[in-house]
Amino acid sequence: MATPLTRIAELEIDPAQLEAYRRLLAAEIEASLRHEPGVLAIEAVALAEAPAQIRIFEVYADQAAYQAHLRSPHFLAYKAGTAAMVKGLRLVQVDPLRVRARALDF
Amino acid sequence: MATPLTRIAELEIDPAQLEAYRRLLAAEIEASLRHEPGVLAIEAVALAEAPAQIRIFEVYADQAAYQAHLRSPHFLAYKAGTAAMVKGLRLVQVDPLRVRARALDF
Repeated sequence: MATPLTRIAELEIDPAQLEAYRRLLAAEIEASLRHEPGVLAIEAVALAEAPAQIRIFEVYADQAAYQAHLRSPHFLAYKAGTAAMVKGLRLVQVDPLRVRARALDF
Repeated sequence: MATPLTRIAELEIDPAQLEAYRRLLAAEIEASLRHEPGVLAIEAVALAEAPAQIRIFEVYADQAAYQAHLRSPHFLAYKAGTAAMVKGLRLVQVDPLRVRARALDF
């Protein structure tokens, strides 16, 4: 098996639209893990001191799984639905060092 | 069940000691997931553009599990063994938004 692909996304959301954004992101994460075997993890958190600052740690089985995710209907709906809510987006390229997780769902 | 506790650690490692640091961190992650049921995930990555910059996403079952982890022999050995390797350490307080992961081990 190829080494999984890891990525970090750093987002800044319009505070006035934060609750709507959170709902759309949560739905996108739910759909991705449910429908895409190659999406291994999507873990979204908000900075305690700045809740409109979102950090998302993502794991895909391989590059093909990541590309398929970008074309999935739920991801495209999330991108379209949140485009006007996202004030800043930075994709951080990262390489895995050691990744261990039990199955998580919360 | 209590909502799990999430945390992000951002570290800068002395480049001359990076390989040794990576080995000690990997061993600490391995031991934590093996011996501590309350450690739900430790996911360490390095920035592709700056490999001495490490990001660690951590999930604990609850505050008690996190406190127990800080007192565990493998964590204390990691802290002592890497103290002279770590040039910078920032603990980012975060709140979970939506976290889903399959079991990961790579």
